[in-house]
Amino acid sequence: MSRVLRSAFKLGSHHATYLLHQQEARIIKSISCYCDYSYKGGQEGGDGESRRDFRTVLTLVGLGGFVAAYVLASKVAAEGKPSKENVNYQKWHTEARTDLPTYKQEVIQKHDTLEKRIWVTYGIGVYDITDFVPKHPGSDKIMLGAGSAIDPFWAIYQQHNNKEILTLLESFRIGNLDKADAVSTEDMGSPWANEPKRHPLLKPASERPFNAEPPISLLAENFLTPNEFFYVRNHLPVPVIDAESYELDVEVEESGISKSFSLDEIKKLPKCTVTAAVMCGGNRRSEMTEVKPVKGLSWSAGAVGNAKWSGAKLRDILLAIGVESDEKRHVIFEGCDLDPTSHPYGASIPLSKAMDERGDVILAYEMNGETINRDHGFPLRVIVPGTVGARNVKWLSRVVVSDSESSSHWQQNDYKGFSPSTDWDTVDFTKSPAIQAMPVTSAICCPSEGDKVQTKDGCIAVKGYAWSGGGRRIVRVDLTADGGESWHVAELEQDDLPDGRHYGWTLWSANLPVPAGQKKIEIWSKAVDSAYNTQPESFKYTWNLRGVLSNAYHRVKVEIE
Amino acid sequence: MSRVLRSAFKLGSHHATYLLHQQEARIIKSISCYCDYSYKGGQEGGDGESRRDFRTVLTLVGLGGFVAAYVLASKVAAEGKPSKENVNYQKWHTEARTDLPTYKQEVIQKHDTLEKRIWVTYGIGVYDITDFVPKHPGSDKIMLGAGSAIDPFWAIYQQHNNKEILTLLESFRIGNLDKADAVSTEDMGSPWANEPKRHPLLKPASERPFNAEPPISLLAENFLTPNEFFYVRNHLPVPVIDAESYELDVEVEESGISKSFSLDEIKKLPKCTVTAAVMCGGNRRSEMTEVKPVKGLSWSAGAVGNAKWSGAKLRDILLAIGVESDEKRHVIFEGCDLDPTSHPYGASIPLSKAMDERGDVILAYEMNGETINRDHGFPLRVIVPGTVGARNVKWLSRVVVSDSESSSHWQQNDYKGFSPSTDWDTVDFTKSPAIQAMPVTSAICCPSEGDKVQTKDGCIAVKGYAWSGGGRRIVRVDLTADGGESWHVAELEQDDLPDGRHYGWTLWSANLPVPAGQKKIEIWSKAVDSAYNTQPESFKYTWNLRGVLSNAYHRVKVEIE
Repeated sequence: MSRVLRSAFKLGSHHATYLLHQQEARIIKSISCYCDYSYKGGQEGGDGESRRDFRTVLTLVGLGGFVAAYVLASKVAAEGKPSKENVNYQKWHTEARTDLPTYKQEVIQKHDTLEKRIWVTYGIGVYDITDFVPKHPGSDKIMLGAGSAIDPFWAIYQQHNNKEILTLLESFRIGNLDKADAVSTEDMGSPWANEPKRHPLLKPASERPFNAEPPISLLAENFLTPNEFFYVRNHLPVPVIDAESYELDVEVEESGISKSFSLDEIKKLPKCTVTAAVMCGGNRRSEMTEVKPVKGLSWSAGAVGNAKWSGAKLRDILLAIGVESDEKRHVIFEGCDLDPTSHPYGASIPLSKAMDERGDVILAYEMNGETINRDHGFPLRVIVPGTVGARNVKWLSRVVVSDSESSSHWQQNDYKGFSPSTDWDTVDFTKSPAIQAMPVTSAICCPSEGDKVQTKDGCIAVKGYAWSGGGRRIVRVDLTADGGESWHVAELEQDDLPDGRHYGWTLWSANLPVPAGQKKIEIWSKAVDSAYNTQPESFKYTWNLRGVLSNAYHRVKVEIE
Repeated sequence: MSRVLRSAFKLGSHHATYLLHQQEARIIKSISCYCDYSYKGGQEGGDGESRRDFRTVLTLVGLGGFVAAYVLASKVAAEGKPSKENVNYQKWHTEARTDLPTYKQEVIQKHDTLEKRIWVTYGIGVYDITDFVPKHPGSDKIMLGAGSAIDPFWAIYQQHNNKEILTLLESFRIGNLDKADAVSTEDMGSPWANEPKRHPLLKPASERPFNAEPPISLLAENFLTPNEFFYVRNHLPVPVIDAESYELDVEVEESGISKSFSLDEIKKLPKCTVTAAVMCGGNRRSEMTEVKPVKGLSWSAGAVGNAKWSGAKLRDILLAIGVESDEKRHVIFEGCDLDPTSHPYGASIPLSKAMDERGDVILAYEMNGETINRDHGFPLRVIVPGTVGARNVKWLSRVVVSDSESSSHWQQNDYKGFSPSTDWDTVDFTKSPAIQAMPVTSAICCPSEGDKVQTKDGCIAVKGYAWSGGGRRIVRVDLTADGGESWHVAELEQDDLPDGRHYGWTLWSANLPVPAGQKKIEIWSKAVDSAYNTQPESFKYTWNLRGVLSNAYHRVKVEIE
């Protein structure tokens, strides 16, 4: 078994099923470079697939991202390339095309440079994907992945098994792989065999990896979101971790100092509890999509939850190994959830946030008083209060104090905001900062879109949540039922904590006066935080290609009974 | 001379001119309670007059606020009360009304309770203002001011000398004061005799007190605003302070510890320099007014400047007297600019901001490398970076660590945001927090509204500023010339400082593509800060009765030549 696979699955009890033949191991190894951390998804609060160049395309072909693929597929179709409608697209790659030649693997693997053209195989399909490789510096990593099979990846990233992506891939088809050289993944077993059980109320936006939110009508029922209803944002199979043998490595890049902590050692440090909402950077993306399609999971307003997290202060651990605060340095977090190339999920925050006495960054082993469960990071996740979910790394394996931010895809090439006119041809991820604190937002949880609601004394009962990043307290939530002509101020339920450390969400409720005689109304909510920042009116002027930071007024149409 | 007047003007070299007769001193003393800090104006970044109850009305009568008075006057007129159009309103209070009786001061001063009705005098006019006193707890202070003359106040607050306020007052007229008892302010001299010289480019929004902004076309010319062009927000005559004898009192309310610091002692503390923009809470108010009138000075976008401030860290001074950080406490600042009731201008910030090593609060004696000038707080002002101008108290006389926020009008009953539907009848100032950090904003400085501009390669040159409170860096400025259909990202000029301590403004510039063939365009700017908060689209849904936090997209119409 290759080093790559060993490390990828070292923590899974099912790793024995991953034994591959030598040939497969070679393929995996060579294709691993394709990925460069680019696979679908992020952590809770995250959503992967974004790339400004061919890495995107190749990643999409190799690893997924059906939205972008859909766009590309449409482009391909428009350009008159083959589009096989009404045939069994799921079998294309398993069947030889008699109109195309057959190649041996040894021939295919020579096609690993732009000059020689870049070929990949899937099933017994051979595909030339060269035309999507832009000739720019930095694409050398992509080149290393050329000439190999993508099958082992697709065994894990099952979201590729859809018409759009398979259509796109088939459009690149140039031949058939000699059946003797075909890659089988049948003996890999299922990496999904050890997923935890989830509450049936969680509506998956994606099954594998599991990404799901609760019905938002339930969200405002509890100030602390019950663990089983808390949205889940995974990007790989949930690692199986033995708490007894678990160790967290903490390292300081500059000094070379490092120390491992067992879970028991961490639990012996002073225990600290923080109430913090964790919100996906893509929460409410589905609303932004109505302006124009974006890349990412179609979250409703439920990719957020509020919990009481308990654990050790990261500050205490860093002080214990002699780290001093420094505003130019960063703390990198790595998860135990490795991709098949052995790259862990990764993210970073400024060291100053971690070292700040009032920063409240904790390594949490409890969620709402219970042992943190597998979907939420068992045995240890970092909680970076006030900060986008993507930095709240789960299944924490390693903490590194570094001069640089995490080099991970999610830190560098994802979770960043852009101008509405920036598209996938013009985006330059180096130009925007990684999202840390999130902007102010709110959502109407009840009533739901399309509900028939009853009035009482000319009012309807409305409730929802509001939150702002950076520990900024919500100071007001305004509601309107008449298109902004009049506004009603909601009652707030929130912690009594100082501004700057007010990390929990605010639930709000109101008896909202509705215009007399109107049968159909639209309710809008807008929140204001302690810096008196408020939400944008609509998504039109804040649209961005990744559909993050989707915080315009929330609007819900209802019928008055 | 009364204690009140002595303390009010102890620092002014012109105080000798304020000698009043015993009678006047008595009047001042009794009327002082009316004010309860409520007079027109704030500090730089501030604008006074706001009251939710009778104190507002009485303050307005006694001390100004022509906008509210205008509203009230209109109300009065609508209710059929006397309205003397087309007569010399400036003389009403100096002339006896033959239709009304004449009273001795000893009679008038008995009218000092709601039951006995509340009378005041101005010139030889006697006015019954009882009907505006709501019967609510807490109005006892108002009652103490009843039965006296308002003349000495109006000698200072000259903005009352306008038709609306005098009309309102005359509508309350019930009689004439016996001429023998009339209050003369002629021997008070002019409290304005010692105002500093100002640069003629500063356009006053109000002359006395002096409030002025530079032409905004000049603002984006210099990353550091030249001192002489820096907007000025005063609310009283500029105090004349002798640096040699100047002392700053620093007190801790709980422990009773206090210590005085001479200017030399402060200058011997480690010197710290911070580049920080200071912005009036009412900057850009004139744009919000277009939606619906608000109370306050009609600032354009020039009530902001960016300077390098040097001085001692407040933290160092507080540590020196044994103060420890505490998130429930506050630091109150008082200025040497006292109102005639001896109440100083006052404001407060959370103690945690002052004690934070990264909070950068300084007691500044230099502005852009020069001794801070009189209009900007000579010899010492506090700079609270990232925080609304109103908290950056000038002519600092006293610093108090307290369990409570400043009880000043500007902290309690002004500089707060409200819902667009909150009006002066419904406003409850206890329901909103005092503005500290300001929301993200931007303005187009060049071209100006109505300019004829030339295109070059289909683009026009545009520049301006952007800023966000709380030390949040500006990460992007988007511009559009086609109503938001397409957005162009501006180039930014800013300090290279860590987020959270990025207190200076950002200047931006762009060659903005304009739609071909169009003769008239409107340019919009919107900024995005490091928390990815952005500006609201328009003022309609963020309108508030005080016209603060006026940070919607900036829009400038120009003609293409």
